[in-house]
Amino acid sequence: MPSIVACIGAGNVGCAWAIVFARAGHTVHLYDADPAAVAQRALPAIDISLADLAASGLLTAAAAAAARARILGFESFEAALDGATHIQESASENAALKVELFSRIDALAAPDAIIASSTSAIPGSQLFAHLPGRARCLVAHPVNPPYLIPLVELCPTPWTGIEIVARCRRFMADCGQRPVELKREITGFLLNRLQFALVGEALHLVGEGYCTPEDIDTVMTAGLARRWAFLGPFEVAHLNATAGYAGFMSGLGDMVRSVAADVRPDYPWDDALVARIHARLSADTAVEDVPQRQAWRDRQLMAVARFLADLPRD
Amino acid sequence: MPSIVACIGAGNVGCAWAIVFARAGHTVHLYDADPAAVAQRALPAIDISLADLAASGLLTAAAAAAARARILGFESFEAALDGATHIQESASENAALKVELFSRIDALAAPDAIIASSTSAIPGSQLFAHLPGRARCLVAHPVNPPYLIPLVELCPTPWTGIEIVARCRRFMADCGQRPVELKREITGFLLNRLQFALVGEALHLVGEGYCTPEDIDTVMTAGLARRWAFLGPFEVAHLNATAGYAGFMSGLGDMVRSVAADVRPDYPWDDALVARIHARLSADTAVEDVPQRQAWRDRQLMAVARFLADLPRD
Repeated sequence: MPSIVACIGAGNVGCAWAIVFARAGHTVHLYDADPAAVAQRALPAIDISLADLAASGLLTAAAAAAARARILGFESFEAALDGATHIQESASENAALKVELFSRIDALAAPDAIIASSTSAIPGSQLFAHLPGRARCLVAHPVNPPYLIPLVELCPTPWTGIEIVARCRRFMADCGQRPVELKREITGFLLNRLQFALVGEALHLVGEGYCTPEDIDTVMTAGLARRWAFLGPFEVAHLNATAGYAGFMSGLGDMVRSVAADVRPDYPWDDALVARIHARLSADTAVEDVPQRQAWRDRQLMAVARFLADLPRD
Repeated sequence: MPSIVACIGAGNVGCAWAIVFARAGHTVHLYDADPAAVAQRALPAIDISLADLAASGLLTAAAAAAARARILGFESFEAALDGATHIQESASENAALKVELFSRIDALAAPDAIIASSTSAIPGSQLFAHLPGRARCLVAHPVNPPYLIPLVELCPTPWTGIEIVARCRRFMADCGQRPVELKREITGFLLNRLQFALVGEALHLVGEGYCTPEDIDTVMTAGLARRWAFLGPFEVAHLNATAGYAGFMSGLGDMVRSVAADVRPDYPWDDALVARIHARLSADTAVEDVPQRQAWRDRQLMAVARFLADLPRD
């Protein structure tokens, strides 16, 4: 059922969320603490993203125009929150700023509204502890841009109502996202823990001279990610043995154990290593060409989204 | 330049290698210690794989037929090695068996032939130390099936000639593979170290009840792998900040460090956890349906290979 969603904070993440919610038929109230930001930067950026989506075939031109018409810029904080049943905070990643912002949101939001933070690194228990309405607050961490990468991590605090998590999960799924749900808080949630376990070991391998940064990137794009694009790591193992996952682990569990015990995700990388990796990456994409390469990345992500949407599950 | 490649061991891995080499125009001598294996199992399996490749559009029917015609089964070990300039060993993963096999290969192979092992877990220094020709031996670890997943890890031993690694790298690249090169030996090479760093942390998250096995699989397929399918982890970071990789690490390095220090890839999983994950996976794909699901996985991998081949690099 279409409802009103308030997006508080209109940077990259807030704009991308606005597209997700409007694409799903909701009316979006877009607000930023900087009064000029919405009209001068956010709405023009949304226009470009929606045009890209239409050009890629992921949205029809008519659907893009209809989504755009549902996104309304607000200069008044109170008016932006008025009538919203879901509030998605995407202010900058600063705990003190967010803590103060949530006080104001909780005081103004309708009693049954869900309040979600896009934070990627601050535990919700730090953001919401002080709020009278903390039972209706949780983290809903997207991957940027969420209109192309559907994962959203729902991270309750010790006070979050179980029915709030369930409602937020349904809401996100109805918007076309793929929610996962942490049962309790942990540093880095799920995605960044998995990502930095691998990235930490990659830094170890490059830092100790076992391989080059390009080799790591090749291992992913020409190797590991070929399966992970459509099969998770547990499913990969389940299909790698005639007796399924149990068979895989009974045959290769010792290998898994010995390699996993040997990796060094906590490798103490230093600035010299970062500079060396930066130099290699800059040889392919100079810093001044990064914006152009970002646009290329987003076109690739659109192609991946189109491809995976068409890939039969069975 | 087309040459003769000997594939020693005609199980899944050996058959898949035979397709890679024959597809690239080489004549393949396929041998297995079990004299019935080549004619009764390997060549029929290769016929099916080549038909699948042709059906998927990755090979024309004519190219598939030409590749098939270049794959010759041998019952004589000596005859299989005769004239080969590259020898790819893919016997079962048993160090003692391989050590003995390499003694026989090294004694018979032409002086300038390269000898490569497909082992995924045994260090080359254990397999080749005793050989007079150990300077021409290295590990060339594929991802199965290598005709769909092009990564190959080249792992020299302390005795491997540097020109041997360079020659093997050129040979693999000419066959359409994407070689990476370890500068020195390490347990698990690159791919399995990166894989099991992530998988170990996934076992930790599920084992300690933070999420379900399905959540991990969703984080990968709906999140992390969307980028990793075409951008490695270092490139991802390079494009995530306006000042490139150095800018990313200067802004978010502390977050990377604190999460990477908190992950537990060495989590001591036990049989009960394996059984629990197995039960969840089996609810989707029962063990008796694994072969059918493997065929589906290979069709998906073909679609991914076709998609990525067409994805513009620029």
